[in-house]
Amino acid sequence: MSDDQGRKRSRAGGRAGNKARAGSAVIEQMPWRIPVVPDRPIEPLDDEGVQRIHKTAMRILSEIGIEFLNPDAVAILRKAGCRVRDTNVRMDEDFVMEMLAHAPAQFTITPRNADRAVPIGGRHMAFVNVSSPPNAWDLERGKRTGDFETFKEFMKLTQYFNCIHIAGGYPVEPVDIHPSVRHLDCLFEKLTLTDKVVHAYSLGAERVEDVMEMTRIAAGLTQDEFDAAPRMYTNINSVSPLKHDFPMLDGAMRLAKRGQPVVVTPFTLAGAMAPVTMAGAVALSLAEGLAAIVLLQYINPGCPVAIGTFTSNVDMKSGAPAFGTPEYMRATQMTGQLARFYKLPMRSSGVCAGNVPDAQSMWETCNSLWAAVQSGTNMVYHAAGWLEGGLIASPEKFVMDCEVLQMIQRYCEAPLWSTSDDDLAFDTIREVGPGGHYFGCQHTQDRYQTAFYAPFVSDWRNYEAWQQDGGVWTSERAHRLYKQILAEFEAPPMDGACREELQRFVARRKQEGGAPTDF
Amino acid sequence: MSDDQGRKRSRAGGRAGNKARAGSAVIEQMPWRIPVVPDRPIEPLDDEGVQRIHKTAMRILSEIGIEFLNPDAVAILRKAGCRVRDTNVRMDEDFVMEMLAHAPAQFTITPRNADRAVPIGGRHMAFVNVSSPPNAWDLERGKRTGDFETFKEFMKLTQYFNCIHIAGGYPVEPVDIHPSVRHLDCLFEKLTLTDKVVHAYSLGAERVEDVMEMTRIAAGLTQDEFDAAPRMYTNINSVSPLKHDFPMLDGAMRLAKRGQPVVVTPFTLAGAMAPVTMAGAVALSLAEGLAAIVLLQYINPGCPVAIGTFTSNVDMKSGAPAFGTPEYMRATQMTGQLARFYKLPMRSSGVCAGNVPDAQSMWETCNSLWAAVQSGTNMVYHAAGWLEGGLIASPEKFVMDCEVLQMIQRYCEAPLWSTSDDDLAFDTIREVGPGGHYFGCQHTQDRYQTAFYAPFVSDWRNYEAWQQDGGVWTSERAHRLYKQILAEFEAPPMDGACREELQRFVARRKQEGGAPTDF
Repeated sequence: MSDDQGRKRSRAGGRAGNKARAGSAVIEQMPWRIPVVPDRPIEPLDDEGVQRIHKTAMRILSEIGIEFLNPDAVAILRKAGCRVRDTNVRMDEDFVMEMLAHAPAQFTITPRNADRAVPIGGRHMAFVNVSSPPNAWDLERGKRTGDFETFKEFMKLTQYFNCIHIAGGYPVEPVDIHPSVRHLDCLFEKLTLTDKVVHAYSLGAERVEDVMEMTRIAAGLTQDEFDAAPRMYTNINSVSPLKHDFPMLDGAMRLAKRGQPVVVTPFTLAGAMAPVTMAGAVALSLAEGLAAIVLLQYINPGCPVAIGTFTSNVDMKSGAPAFGTPEYMRATQMTGQLARFYKLPMRSSGVCAGNVPDAQSMWETCNSLWAAVQSGTNMVYHAAGWLEGGLIASPEKFVMDCEVLQMIQRYCEAPLWSTSDDDLAFDTIREVGPGGHYFGCQHTQDRYQTAFYAPFVSDWRNYEAWQQDGGVWTSERAHRLYKQILAEFEAPPMDGACREELQRFVARRKQEGGAPTDF
Repeated sequence: MSDDQGRKRSRAGGRAGNKARAGSAVIEQMPWRIPVVPDRPIEPLDDEGVQRIHKTAMRILSEIGIEFLNPDAVAILRKAGCRVRDTNVRMDEDFVMEMLAHAPAQFTITPRNADRAVPIGGRHMAFVNVSSPPNAWDLERGKRTGDFETFKEFMKLTQYFNCIHIAGGYPVEPVDIHPSVRHLDCLFEKLTLTDKVVHAYSLGAERVEDVMEMTRIAAGLTQDEFDAAPRMYTNINSVSPLKHDFPMLDGAMRLAKRGQPVVVTPFTLAGAMAPVTMAGAVALSLAEGLAAIVLLQYINPGCPVAIGTFTSNVDMKSGAPAFGTPEYMRATQMTGQLARFYKLPMRSSGVCAGNVPDAQSMWETCNSLWAAVQSGTNMVYHAAGWLEGGLIASPEKFVMDCEVLQMIQRYCEAPLWSTSDDDLAFDTIREVGPGGHYFGCQHTQDRYQTAFYAPFVSDWRNYEAWQQDGGVWTSERAHRLYKQILAEFEAPPMDGACREELQRFVARRKQEGGAPTDF
């Protein structure tokens, strides 16, 4: 953590941040790694189905059009030859496909600690912390509005867990910080409490520019170095159906111009903002997402982008959004097929409707996480900590989800299905023979420490041992763990000069009044 | 329920049992159906990997051999040309493959209500209730030894839920019934409280014969009719490593002779009764399973069989079995690949290590259930109600698992990924336009009642609505539901003459002393 640790290599990768794994004493966790999913994706659609959804998305773009509520975007698309009437922009398949062909199938985002670089695309799957809930909930304090203290707690959890690869949006909205300077305080904490990839909300020019600048400063990069490769990213949502709003497009265009990645994620709840049928909801989602990607590829051909999906269904009784449903899983898989058709990296999420970290929240989250694995998702948003359809971030849920994420990481590792002679163990089977046991044999002794996934919040003891130890349910165990993690948290090392420059930048921007708050 | 309802058709299918769905008032559940999994299975092994596991299983069978602790079985296999030394039987690949070629890839088990017939094989996936825990646990009474009253409660849940297709083993062991007559009382309740496929424990000749006879009587079948097609089944476990015990083999042979299905499920915990490496554990499990299947195919070529897997890992710290782990999932998928290689139907399970129906128990169960879906499993044992590695049956867990099972059923249904013009909804997307919503449009109105999976124990309301309603966690909601279901339970209709004959049979067999208890 001394000032000179990072200085000497301030422009190169391999900062000292990865030397000490912060707080690793509390639990034994898996080392940092980006899972690579070895399985063929699950593909509900046949080729004709893929074509029919594609063609419908294209018809939406050419015959109905998308509203671009941003004059710059409209002017650019008009210049590109799209048919424009007021804010309505129609584009033809040939143009769309020409623009999509520019988009890279894979790119890498490199944060201030180059060892935490994250490849997005191919069979890689990166996990992002819960992002954007207005509220927090924990077993002790119940539900309450997000604040800065809680924001920092989640940043520490985000840094602590090696299975979280990206520090996405704000895990809770810190409403005790004035909106004009909230992004400055939040990004300062995010960039100092973590050394992972960060994200900028596209909520106005000043915020976006500030976050890019802070990311650059934290990594000790020149402007040119920043522009030379992906260093952070933004995620924009359309206003479904069929609209992109001003600030989201503005932010996306600012990042695209500087070669920083943009994830475009329509929020198409079937039966509410999208057709009640999943194919229709997916086609609408794709049309909205592709429209923005086309704009960005026209502005800066080859700029890194990803297509997101947030297609789920509503509860038809209450209108409430549902997550981790069979419909959600199939929509995610279908979107994955289309993302591969367009050769775009894809984002989906680890989501649930459950209000507390109980059984329901976990079966819903497991369903959505397995759908991510099966769909070829490259970036799994909200992978840890999400509750109540995204209205609550919970530290207990965060800890529990990380157990599932680690299991998914392990699930992707080839030793599990390796069939070398050593793995087949014929000689050992002969040696142990009938009625023997394998605990003591050399083959087991040589491997037992690494053979199996080792859990940190699961309790695998029998009922009596578990009960004697207090009979603690999983949510309560997760509660204790998260507190321990926070208590023993150590921030990752950071170049002292970078940190000071970051502080100066924040102070200056605050003095200037931060960002306008008329949104 | 009147006596004459079933009488007229007492030998044919389509009994009145399915007219009224017992207790359907408590919750709205999905109708009876057997899911057909449309997806390509997940296949971690390449062709060479499949061959290498196969060849290792064959080497185990021919070079190490399996202990058959049953003189009849040994004599039969000796006659078949196997190399026998005492109880050790070695068989060569050619003979094994010749015998396996007799086994049907698919068969159907028809219970007393022919509408509850269950196809085993192909892409069908049938769900079996939790079987064989010695204990029960619920939120009110905690953990306690199984008894007859609790046994009956689980039978009612088994019958109630349409997503449970098979009434497998005893959900709890009713220790308050003397072992000599326990099978008589249990099967009487099972055959009258349910109209679904039943199972016989292979725990001695008398028990097996009694259950076959009771199943025959309950369905009003002649002996010839019983023998003509699968009417019930047994599941046998090997004594891993490398052993089959006397009563299991005895029961399996009795069923095979009468054309009744036998599921062979080794219990190979990697690191305990099997190699610590998953490929080795799977090869051992297959060798043990195939050995018994070969015996049965020699006795009655073409008799219905299935290969089971129960390969998981132990917790290397405590030696406790772990379930729903990444290792478990991959072992299940690998076994699925080999089952398809041998063209045998396959059984796996819905299992967990969790001690209470909380978050951990659900992520473990979800992992194992999705592994069943992905592996091509045809028969999912313990699909509802299992806790503590199989030492506890819980009614709350039963209800919760049934929600997940229903979601899996729905996940398998083609409307979710249909791309008809109606599904693509282009005209509706145009009609609603930008910024509109889909709640009110005709396309939604026509479909909203069936478009989405409708949950019965999940609470999809927002936090405030959920809290105002008491803030009830999932396990407690499941608790209330199971009590309501029991309170309103109605047994399925049964032919009065069959029921009387069944009563007479039980009375007579009890008078005769039941089964010997020297096991």
